[in-house]
Amino acid sequence: MESPAKSDQVSTGRLESFSDGVIAVAATLLVLNITVPLPDKTPHLAHALGSQWPIYAAYAVSFMTIGIIWINHHAMISRLAQADRTILILNLLLLSSIAVLPFATSLIATYLKEGHGQKLAAGVYAGSFLVMSLAFSALNQHILLRKAHLLGEDLGAERRRQILARSVSGIIPYTIATALAAVSPYATLAICGAIAVFYAFPIGSGG
Amino acid sequence: MESPAKSDQVSTGRLESFSDGVIAVAATLLVLNITVPLPDKTPHLAHALGSQWPIYAAYAVSFMTIGIIWINHHAMISRLAQADRTILILNLLLLSSIAVLPFATSLIATYLKEGHGQKLAAGVYAGSFLVMSLAFSALNQHILLRKAHLLGEDLGAERRRQILARSVSGIIPYTIATALAAVSPYATLAICGAIAVFYAFPIGSGG
Amino acid sequence: MESPAKSDQVSTGRLESFSDGVIAVAATLLVLNITVPLPDKTPHLAHALGSQWPIYAAYAVSFMTIGIIWINHHAMISRLAQADRTILILNLLLLSSIAVLPFATSLIATYLKEGHGQKLAAGVYAGSFLVMSLAFSALNQHILLRKAHLLGEDLGAERRRQILARSVSGIIPYTIATALAAVSPYATLAICGAIAVFYAFPIGSGG
Amino acid sequence: MESPAKSDQVSTGRLESFSDGVIAVAATLLVLNITVPLPDKTPHLAHALGSQWPIYAAYAVSFMTIGIIWINHHAMISRLAQADRTILILNLLLLSSIAVLPFATSLIATYLKEGHGQKLAAGVYAGSFLVMSLAFSALNQHILLRKAHLLGEDLGAERRRQILARSVSGIIPYTIATALAAVSPYATLAICGAIAVFYAFPIGSGG
Repeated sequence: MESPAKSDQVSTGRLESFSDGVIAVAATLLVLNITVPLPDKTPHLAHALGSQWPIYAAYAVSFMTIGIIWINHHAMISRLAQADRTILILNLLLLSSIAVLPFATSLIATYLKEGHGQKLAAGVYAGSFLVMSLAFSALNQHILLRKAHLLGEDLGAERRRQILARSVSGIIPYTIATALAAVSPYATLAICGAIAVFYAFPIGSGG
Repeated sequence: MESPAKSDQVSTGRLESFSDGVIAVAATLLVLNITVPLPDKTPHLAHALGSQWPIYAAYAVSFMTIGIIWINHHAMISRLAQADRTILILNLLLLSSIAVLPFATSLIATYLKEGHGQKLAAGVYAGSFLVMSLAFSALNQHILLRKAHLLGEDLGAERRRQILARSVSGIIPYTIATALAAVSPYATLAICGAIAVFYAFPIGSGG
Repeated sequence: MESPAKSDQVSTGRLESFSDGVIAVAATLLVLNITVPLPDKTPHLAHALGSQWPIYAAYAVSFMTIGIIWINHHAMISRLAQADRTILILNLLLLSSIAVLPFATSLIATYLKEGHGQKLAAGVYAGSFLVMSLAFSALNQHILLRKAHLLGEDLGAERRRQILARSVSGIIPYTIATALAAVSPYATLAICGAIAVFYAFPIGSGG
Repeated sequence: MESPAKSDQVSTGRLESFSDGVIAVAATLLVLNITVPLPDKTPHLAHALGSQWPIYAAYAVSFMTIGIIWINHHAMISRLAQADRTILILNLLLLSSIAVLPFATSLIATYLKEGHGQKLAAGVYAGSFLVMSLAFSALNQHILLRKAHLLGEDLGAERRRQILARSVSGIIPYTIATALAAVSPYATLAICGAIAVFYAFPIGSGG
């Protein structure tokens, strides 16, 4: 007789497929933040499009960040031979923090040039990335330290700690970006962009 | 010659892929309910964001509920070796009840703090979850009791009734949550959240 | 040396995955048509929600119709061992006719009870289903009659004509539904719903 | 011990699945640009729908273009046995240029018949396709010239240059379409449509 616990085990294939769906939709929904200026209220389209630059900058930073978290998510899950319910639930928490990014992106894009609220908006923006990287690290830690028997190959304790350290290290720059929102929302956006570029083209990766 | 009935048989692979798509999109569309306060009408962004808390609460409850229904959906379908047309149609009914949740979520988030309509909105919200769990149970019952020959392994009548009982048991708390909407919409939202937490971290699962 | 033609051949796996994505997103976007009545302009929420019934009816009909076209699409593609560029292009035309259904659904839902425009809206609605079933039949005809060598198993000319006849037969009721829009938009919506129910629970299928 | 570089290697399966998701969602989001005329402000629905023809034309051109880029993307990735981080990052840049197309489509659809801004809107529209084809060529060049060892079969240097030349050749017509926006936005839209038709039904392909 099948035990209740066993029935909760999930092939990583469908876990990836659902995660891919949520992450791909979240990335693509970002475009809904880029709105077309109303013709009746737009004497100069070029000027109107140009003044929307925070929207484009936030789109670019968020899309690349979501794309990079997808790459890292793939690496994390591909180490697993099988998932269990706790992994699924932690993965859902991670996905819910990714799915909220179109809102956070819209918030900073709307308020970056406003006379008020721009620091809070930037703080929420970087704070959302911070929450996402915390959720990612929590899931990775759970997999590597507590569910090592579900891994596809035996990685060894040191190698697992090493992978985890790299994943946890992403928390620090997002903490700085969030804190800096109190000083300059532009700096916050710039740092979030720099983090995305840094992870996209790692120094010496020989890619 | 292939019989008409046989041509309706579907590999569960593509059934899962379509279901994953609908469920992932429904979960991610929830974020569209979280709107950015208009700068011109928002003297204090912090206050405006804070007063939106029903939107965040409803987002969190709905996202986790959709995520858990996805986990349960996976378990249900993974028992099948093959699907037939009736299973596909019942699955479509289930998916249509999941796809409607972004609307129900927006409804309770909009009316929770209003002076009128909040009880009806909460009733529709919990009622949508109730319909979803009824559709889920109907499909599960059809698979386990009437289409046992399509299962991947022979589970035995008792084991099948046991699985079904667990799935049907989800109907009771949603009935209570729906009924309580007539008394307190806050209680309804809290119960729906508690159901999600209960299913996410089952007592003694040792996850 | 690989010929240009050969490089255009596509595994049906990814064709299905892309089609599943478009169809799943189109079905789930239907929910965006169901809007929440504004609290400030809604003295009685129950009445406001009730008067929206054309939106719910159109949602139900469209969701089930898209779901059934997905089932039929699966059956059609699963007969193929391989696809070529013409199949891909005809499939794109079919997908573009499915992706437009959220607009057609919104149109009939908005105008069904209006004093003007409701006949045209119903005509566009049923006409969209008609175009979709024409695109489906064109693709199926191309596969069964002109690309029989790409089929996974040899079906025989008669069996292929038989499958095609069933798929072409869907064109007739949609033509009737479109024509009836000039008389009664309610009849059009009812017929489209009846078509969905008829295909969902075929008489004597023993499902 | 696994090297850091190795852990970045990704099966092309999940690369395709994520790309399929983004491309399918971007194509399906195009429909959100087709809005239903407000009943209160629409004395004649037929006229209102008819005057929206730039929206339908832009929808058709963009949907087919996205569909064709998906076909080409499939051909490009299917040559790979494995992907590495640089391929993933270049693919993300390509996906971000595809995901932005619903905005560019909305822009030209809104401004095509306006007395001002229509040339800029058309320029942005064709320019977005130009950026997309540049990103596609950059990724294809990287794969064929610098990562030939990751290909599934050895194609030979001449064959690889030949494939690349075909992919780069798409840049020229989009450059012309972008430049022509300064003269006639209608011509720009027509050329973009002609490019889609040309790639859909290639002369002498015998499809």
